[in-house]
Amino acid sequence: MTDDLQGLTLAGVTDIVDRALAEDAPWGDATSEAAIPATATATARIVSRVDGTFAGGIPLELAFTRVDPTLVVERHLADGDPMTPGTVVATITGSARAILRGERVALNLSQRLSGIATLTRQHVDAVAGTGVRLVDTRKTTPGLRMLEKAAVRAGGGHNHRYSLSDAVMLKDNHLAVLRAQGLDLTEAIRTVRARIPHTMHLEVEVDGLDQLPAVIAAEPDTIMLDNFTLDDLRAGVALIAGRAVVEASGGVRLDTVRAIAETGVDVISVGALTHSAPALDLGLDIVIDGAL
Amino acid sequence: MTDDLQGLTLAGVTDIVDRALAEDAPWGDATSEAAIPATATATARIVSRVDGTFAGGIPLELAFTRVDPTLVVERHLADGDPMTPGTVVATITGSARAILRGERVALNLSQRLSGIATLTRQHVDAVAGTGVRLVDTRKTTPGLRMLEKAAVRAGGGHNHRYSLSDAVMLKDNHLAVLRAQGLDLTEAIRTVRARIPHTMHLEVEVDGLDQLPAVIAAEPDTIMLDNFTLDDLRAGVALIAGRAVVEASGGVRLDTVRAIAETGVDVISVGALTHSAPALDLGLDIVIDGAL
Amino acid sequence: MTDDLQGLTLAGVTDIVDRALAEDAPWGDATSEAAIPATATATARIVSRVDGTFAGGIPLELAFTRVDPTLVVERHLADGDPMTPGTVVATITGSARAILRGERVALNLSQRLSGIATLTRQHVDAVAGTGVRLVDTRKTTPGLRMLEKAAVRAGGGHNHRYSLSDAVMLKDNHLAVLRAQGLDLTEAIRTVRARIPHTMHLEVEVDGLDQLPAVIAAEPDTIMLDNFTLDDLRAGVALIAGRAVVEASGGVRLDTVRAIAETGVDVISVGALTHSAPALDLGLDIVIDGAL
Amino acid sequence: MTDDLQGLTLAGVTDIVDRALAEDAPWGDATSEAAIPATATATARIVSRVDGTFAGGIPLELAFTRVDPTLVVERHLADGDPMTPGTVVATITGSARAILRGERVALNLSQRLSGIATLTRQHVDAVAGTGVRLVDTRKTTPGLRMLEKAAVRAGGGHNHRYSLSDAVMLKDNHLAVLRAQGLDLTEAIRTVRARIPHTMHLEVEVDGLDQLPAVIAAEPDTIMLDNFTLDDLRAGVALIAGRAVVEASGGVRLDTVRAIAETGVDVISVGALTHSAPALDLGLDIVIDGAL
Amino acid sequence: MTDDLQGLTLAGVTDIVDRALAEDAPWGDATSEAAIPATATATARIVSRVDGTFAGGIPLELAFTRVDPTLVVERHLADGDPMTPGTVVATITGSARAILRGERVALNLSQRLSGIATLTRQHVDAVAGTGVRLVDTRKTTPGLRMLEKAAVRAGGGHNHRYSLSDAVMLKDNHLAVLRAQGLDLTEAIRTVRARIPHTMHLEVEVDGLDQLPAVIAAEPDTIMLDNFTLDDLRAGVALIAGRAVVEASGGVRLDTVRAIAETGVDVISVGALTHSAPALDLGLDIVIDGAL
Amino acid sequence: MTDDLQGLTLAGVTDIVDRALAEDAPWGDATSEAAIPATATATARIVSRVDGTFAGGIPLELAFTRVDPTLVVERHLADGDPMTPGTVVATITGSARAILRGERVALNLSQRLSGIATLTRQHVDAVAGTGVRLVDTRKTTPGLRMLEKAAVRAGGGHNHRYSLSDAVMLKDNHLAVLRAQGLDLTEAIRTVRARIPHTMHLEVEVDGLDQLPAVIAAEPDTIMLDNFTLDDLRAGVALIAGRAVVEASGGVRLDTVRAIAETGVDVISVGALTHSAPALDLGLDIVIDGAL
Repeated sequence: MTDDLQGLTLAGVTDIVDRALAEDAPWGDATSEAAIPATATATARIVSRVDGTFAGGIPLELAFTRVDPTLVVERHLADGDPMTPGTVVATITGSARAILRGERVALNLSQRLSGIATLTRQHVDAVAGTGVRLVDTRKTTPGLRMLEKAAVRAGGGHNHRYSLSDAVMLKDNHLAVLRAQGLDLTEAIRTVRARIPHTMHLEVEVDGLDQLPAVIAAEPDTIMLDNFTLDDLRAGVALIAGRAVVEASGGVRLDTVRAIAETGVDVISVGALTHSAPALDLGLDIVIDGAL
Repeated sequence: MTDDLQGLTLAGVTDIVDRALAEDAPWGDATSEAAIPATATATARIVSRVDGTFAGGIPLELAFTRVDPTLVVERHLADGDPMTPGTVVATITGSARAILRGERVALNLSQRLSGIATLTRQHVDAVAGTGVRLVDTRKTTPGLRMLEKAAVRAGGGHNHRYSLSDAVMLKDNHLAVLRAQGLDLTEAIRTVRARIPHTMHLEVEVDGLDQLPAVIAAEPDTIMLDNFTLDDLRAGVALIAGRAVVEASGGVRLDTVRAIAETGVDVISVGALTHSAPALDLGLDIVIDGAL
Repeated sequence: MTDDLQGLTLAGVTDIVDRALAEDAPWGDATSEAAIPATATATARIVSRVDGTFAGGIPLELAFTRVDPTLVVERHLADGDPMTPGTVVATITGSARAILRGERVALNLSQRLSGIATLTRQHVDAVAGTGVRLVDTRKTTPGLRMLEKAAVRAGGGHNHRYSLSDAVMLKDNHLAVLRAQGLDLTEAIRTVRARIPHTMHLEVEVDGLDQLPAVIAAEPDTIMLDNFTLDDLRAGVALIAGRAVVEASGGVRLDTVRAIAETGVDVISVGALTHSAPALDLGLDIVIDGAL
Repeated sequence: MTDDLQGLTLAGVTDIVDRALAEDAPWGDATSEAAIPATATATARIVSRVDGTFAGGIPLELAFTRVDPTLVVERHLADGDPMTPGTVVATITGSARAILRGERVALNLSQRLSGIATLTRQHVDAVAGTGVRLVDTRKTTPGLRMLEKAAVRAGGGHNHRYSLSDAVMLKDNHLAVLRAQGLDLTEAIRTVRARIPHTMHLEVEVDGLDQLPAVIAAEPDTIMLDNFTLDDLRAGVALIAGRAVVEASGGVRLDTVRAIAETGVDVISVGALTHSAPALDLGLDIVIDGAL
Repeated sequence: MTDDLQGLTLAGVTDIVDRALAEDAPWGDATSEAAIPATATATARIVSRVDGTFAGGIPLELAFTRVDPTLVVERHLADGDPMTPGTVVATITGSARAILRGERVALNLSQRLSGIATLTRQHVDAVAGTGVRLVDTRKTTPGLRMLEKAAVRAGGGHNHRYSLSDAVMLKDNHLAVLRAQGLDLTEAIRTVRARIPHTMHLEVEVDGLDQLPAVIAAEPDTIMLDNFTLDDLRAGVALIAGRAVVEASGGVRLDTVRAIAETGVDVISVGALTHSAPALDLGLDIVIDGAL
Repeated sequence: MTDDLQGLTLAGVTDIVDRALAEDAPWGDATSEAAIPATATATARIVSRVDGTFAGGIPLELAFTRVDPTLVVERHLADGDPMTPGTVVATITGSARAILRGERVALNLSQRLSGIATLTRQHVDAVAGTGVRLVDTRKTTPGLRMLEKAAVRAGGGHNHRYSLSDAVMLKDNHLAVLRAQGLDLTEAIRTVRARIPHTMHLEVEVDGLDQLPAVIAAEPDTIMLDNFTLDDLRAGVALIAGRAVVEASGGVRLDTVRAIAETGVDVISVGALTHSAPALDLGLDIVIDGAL
C-alpha cells in the first residue's frame, strides 16, 4: 500500500476506471487497430503543461494496466507533489495500442483530480499560518467522491463528512421539525444526540448569532456558522469559546478565505474545491517504436 | 419518451443515479432519521439562483424517484430551457426524508450538467449566424459521458464521436506508424479506410497546411485543422474547398471562437465545454409539512 | 418511507434479497412448476412459533415482491414489535408458485434478524433503568451488516461505528506503532486527531487502568475499557469523570451485563448480538386455492 | 485447485469477499491510515482460541489478498482439520495496513464457517458407526450458501439439495393441489416424475405412516419422514424396505440424533447446522514491524 | 406467473434483456431520434413469416417494456404454440421511438428461441408414439441457457441436467482416473455415489456393450449409450432391463431419431437442438401514427 | 495485445466468459470433484473434427484461465486460420478438474464463433475477385455481438454498424414520418443529416429504383438497395454512379451471392452469417495424468 491509497479502496478505484474504459472504447479503438500493428510497442510520458499540484496517481496507473496488465507504468510523482510545465508525471511502456486506449481515461481522471488538488493547494496556501483547516463538502462529482476527496487531501486540505450516513449535520429544516413537536432548540439537539450512535459526530448549522447560546448549551461537536459576516464570525468564535469546533461556510472565495480564517474559526468548508475546479492541463507524449 | 432522453438510455442514467445515491447515503441519512418522523411529508422546489441554460432533467427526476418511487416530481423546464434567478425547475412532493436523501445527488448532477449547457450556449451564441457547429470532445467526466454529451446538445451544441469505437480519428502518431511501413500519406489514409467498416466516419488531424494536399487526395470525411492560426484556417478552408468537413480545434476560448468561426470552418471542437465548466448554482428550497 | 427503513437503503436491501432469491432458485422451482398450475393462487401467513422480537420487515416483504410484483404483502408487525407463539407477522396473497419461491428467503432473513433483535432485547431488558447503551460491533454476517445493525436497533440496542471508514478506534497495535516513532501516548492520540476529519469520532481502547491518565489527557471522544474487572470498570469511570464516553467491552454475557452496567459505564458493546444469535423460529402457513 | 475448492467457484467466493470488504471499509481504514505508515509491514497469525473444526480456508485467504495482492498468506490447516486452543490456522505477512483492513472480514467468515463445521462434526461424531448421513438444509445465510454447504462437508456432513432448481421435494401442499385435480397420491407423484427431467431426484415428504404405502408405490428416490417418533421411524424404515432412501427430519438435536440414527434411516437432515451455529472463536495476533 | 416462466427467473431474463438492449443501443438510437418526434406513437405487430413453434414470449415482452415501461405488449401466443406464415405473435403499442429501439433485441431473441422450439418439435414429432423423451444438452449459447432450455420444453422436449453442479455424469476420463487407483468399474461408480449428495442423480456414459454388466451392477440412475449402433442399442436396452434409465446419445439426426427411439431407449439427447438451430423468421410490422 | 483482440475489450470478453462459467457450474463440478483428486493434472487438446476457419481464440483461452489462473493455454491457431480434421487449435495443461470445468464453455464459444467464421469465409470466397465487401448485420446473438463481429472479420468479412448508436440507417418508416411533416424525400434526408453528429455515417435504405434520384440528391454516405433483383441492382449501381457506397441486402444466399456481387455493388450484407451459422465441430481430447 502506498500513501496514495489513503481513503481509497483498490476495488473502488478499479471499478471507476473499468467503467471509464468501457465508456471510452466499448468495442475497441477503431483507429489504432486500423493503423498500428498489434505488436508495435511505445514509450509514453504524462507531462504537465502548467504549474500545479498532482493528484490521481492510482487511477492514472490503473487506466493503463486495466487495459493491458503487461503495460509498465513508472510513476515519478506522488499525489500532492508540485508540478511545473514539463514535469514528467509518469512513463508508460508496452503495447502502443494499449497505451493509446488508456490515454484519454488516464488524462480525464488525472486532469480533473489535479485540478482539484491545485485549487485546494491555493486555498490552503492562502490561509497558511492561521491554523485553519480547509475542508471539502459533499458537492462532488457523482461516482468520483472517493477520488475527489483524496485529491483535496493531496492539495493539503482535509475532508468533511463523507456522506449522509457517517455524521450528523442538523440544518434549519431538521430543527424546525423538532421544534414543531414542542421541543426548544437545546432539547431538539439533545434529542438527536440521544438517537444517534455514540460514535457519530454531531454538527449544527447556525444562520445567526442569536441561535448560538441555545445551540452551545446542547453541546454539539461542531457548530457551522453559515454565511456569517466577518464580524459575526468573530463574535461567534468568542461566544463558542472552544466548547465546539467552529466551521465557517458559504461563499468562500480565494480572495476572501484568509480574512475568514483570521476570524479565529477552526474549519472553513469550500464547495468550489470539487464542484468547480477547472481541469489541469496534462498531456501524453508518445513515441511509437519505429522498427515495426 | 421525451426529447430529454435523446442519446440516453433509461437504464444507463438510472445506473449513474443509483451509484450516486449509494455513494451519498450508503446506510441511510443519519440526520433526517434522527430528526424527522418517517411519516413527515414535504414540498421542495429546485430553483435557479443565476442565469443559465438548464440540463439534466432526467437524472434530476431519477435522483428522487430512485430513493422512493412514491415521490412525485413535476418538472417545469425541459433540457435546454433558459433560466433566470428564481426560475423554478421542478417541484417535488412526498416523504420529507426521501426528498432530503435525494437532494444532494439531484443538485450535484443538474448543477454540473446545467453548467455545461450554459457554457455551451455561450459559445453557440458567440458564433450565431456563421453556420458553424460547436462540438464537444472525449474530455468528459469519467462515468458521465452520456449525460454530458446530452448537456452539450441542450446548450445548442452538437456531439463529436462518442468513443474510440465509433469513428476513426487519425493523428500524427497513427500516420507516422503507417509511413514507417513505406506508405505515403495518401496511401496511409486509404489503407485505413480499406480496413474500417464502410459505415465508419474517417477524420484526419492535420498540424500544418503542407500536409493538406496529400490528405485531401485520400478523401477523408473530415479534416481537423489543429492549432491553426486564423490565416492558416482560412487557407485550409480554401484548399479543402468542400471536399471534406473542416474542423478547427485547439485552444478555443469564448473570446476567440467567433473569429475562428468566421474563417469558414464547418465545425469547432471545444474540450472546455465538458472538462472545465463550473457548476451552475441551483438550490433546493423545502417546506416540511408542519402538522406532524 | 417507514421507520423500518432507518439506516437502510431500499436499493441495498433489494440487492441482498435479489441475490438470495437467485441463490435459492437459480433456474426456477422445479417442484412447484411440476405440481402447481401457473394460475393457482394462495394465501400465506408468516407466523411466530415462539416468543421474541420481530425484525426484518422490509426484506421479508421484498422476498415476495421481488419474485413477483403482483404479490400482496400485508404486514401486521413493525420491526421491534413483540411476538408470542401464534403471532401473525404478515399475510401474503397471490400466485401460489411465487409465494413458495419466496418462502425460504423470507424466512431465512427474518428468522436471522428476529433472532438478533430478540437477543438484543434480552440484553437491553437486563440493563433496564441503568441508562446504559447496549451496542453492536463489526462482527456481523458478511453482506448483511446493514440489516443486522437495523435488527439491533429493533431490539432496543444502538449501533457502534458502521465500518473502518466512519470512525476511528485506536487499539494497542496502532498506539505501539506511533510510540515507536518517539511519541508518548498522549501525543500519539493527538497526532491521530490532527490527521482525521474533524467530523470523525475518536475512540481509544485501553487494556489497563494505568494507561488511563495519559489517554484522558489526549481528550478522545470515547474510551473503551477492554476486558476490565467490575472493580476496574468502576475505577475507570471515576477517573474519566465524564470527560469521555466510557465503553465496556469483552466477554459480556446475558448474566453479567447488568453488573457491568451498574459500574457506571455509558456503553456496553456485545459481539454476540450479531455473530452468535440463533435463528428465531418463524414459519409460513399456506392455503393454496382449492378451486383450480 | 485444492480440495477446499470443492463445491465452490473461485469467482463466487471472490465476489462474497469483495462485497464484505467493501461493506467493512467503503472508503478506507481511517484508523490505520492515521496511525500506521504506508510502508510498515507486519506478521499476523490467525489462531484458534477454542477446540473445533476449521472451515473457510479459501475465503480467509481471499480476505487478505483481495485487499492487497502482495500479501502472503501461508495456510497451516485445510478445511476439516481439527483445532485446539492455540492452533495457528494461517500466517499472513506484508503491509500492516492491508492486514488490518482484511482482519475483520477474514475472521467474520472463518469464525462463522468454522462454527458450522464444528457443530456438524459434533453431530457426525454422535452418529459414528451407524452409517447414517448427516445433511444440511436450505436454511442457510442468504448470500453464503456456497460457503456454508462447504463448511458442512468440512465437518464430515453431506449436502442436501442446493436450491429449488436442482431437485424436487414434494410436500403436503404440492400433493394436495394435485389431488384436488382428481389424482390419488400415487398418481400425483408419478405425474410429477413425468414432468421433471430424468436427471432430477424426486423426494417426497411424509407426515404419517398411513401415507407410506401409496408413496412407496410411486417409486420416489427419497422419502422424508417428517417429525416421526422413533417407533414410527423404525416402522417407516421397515415398510420402505430399501426401495427408497429414507430421510429423517424435524427437531433433531445433538442429544437425540443418535437414537434417530439407530432407527435405520439413511439420512438425517438438520437445519440448525447452518441457521443456528454460534461463531467459533478465532483471533488475529499481529506484530507490526518495529523498525519503521 | 404464467407457464411461460417455468424454469426461468424474472430477474434472470430481465438481466439478459437489459444487456442485449445496452449492447444494441449503448447511447440511444441515432436514427429514430433524428427522424421521429419524441411524442410520436405507433402500433407494431410481431408476425411469423414461416411455419414453426413459438418460444421466447417473456423475453420478447421485456425487450419492449425494459426500454419504456409505458409500452403495452399484448401477446397472442404462448410458448409452444404453432405458427403459420402471417400468425401475429404480439401487438405492441406506444412510443414509436421506444418500439424501434426494442425491435432488434425482441426479434433476435424470439427468432433464436423459436428456431430451437421448432427444431425440437420436429424431433419430438418424429418419435411420436414411442414414449421416448427428447432432451437437450449443455451445448447451449453462453449466457442464454435458461432461455434455450425453456425453448426446448416449448417444443415438446425435456431438459437434461442444467449444469455441472446439479447432476453427475461419469465419462471415460473420470472412470479411468478411479480405476488407476485400483478400483474396478463397479467399485468406481459406487465410490462416486458415496461421495455425492443423496439427492443427486448419477448417470454413467458407456462406449460399448462389454462395459454394461459392471456398470449395471453399480446401480446408476441413468446409463448413457454413446454412439451405439441400432443393434447395440437394442442389446443394451435388453441388458439393462429397466434397472436404469437408458439414454442414447451421439450423432442423432432428424432422419435417424425415430429408428433410435424404436430400439426401446427411454431418452435421446440431441446437442443440435440448441447449438445449431437456425433462427426462425419473425418480423416486426409497424405503423407509426400519421398525425404527428 | 494480439490481433485477435481487434474490436474487443479484454474486460468485455472476460465478462462474457465469467457469466458462461457461472452458468455452467454455479456451485462446482460434482462429477470431477467426486472422481478426480484435486491434485491430478492433465493435458488437453482442442482439436477440429472438420474443415473450417477458426475464431474465438481469446474467449477459448479465458474459459480455462478464468477457472484457474494457473492453467497454461498454448494456442496454435490465430483467429482466421484454416482448420482441417485433426488440426490442433490449442493445448491446455494443468489441474484436471479445472480443465474439465472450462471445457464446455470453451467449446460452446469457439464452436459457435468458428461456425460464423467458416460461413463467412465461404461467402467471402464466393465473391473473390469482385472487390465486394461481405458484411454482417445487427442480427447477432444477444450478449455476444462483440465476439460475433470479430468472428465475421476472422472469416474475411467486414462489419456493418455496431449498434443503433453509432451510425444512422434511415428506413421507410423513418422517412414516412418525416414526409408526413411536409418534407420531400431529399429534404427529409438532409434534415436528418443536419441533426446528427458530423462524424456519423448516414445510410438510406431504398426499396425501389424510383426513389433513387431523390435519395442520391440528398448525398447520403451509403445507399442500401433492399431486396432488389439483379437487374435493378445493376440499374441502381449505374444511377448512383459512385456518389455513395452501394449496399445490397435481403435474402442473400451462398448460391446467389456471387451474382449479386457481379452487379457492381460495393457491399453485401448477410444476416445469416450470425443468426443461422451452425456450430463447427471442435472437440477436447484429454489425458489425465496417470500417476495419481
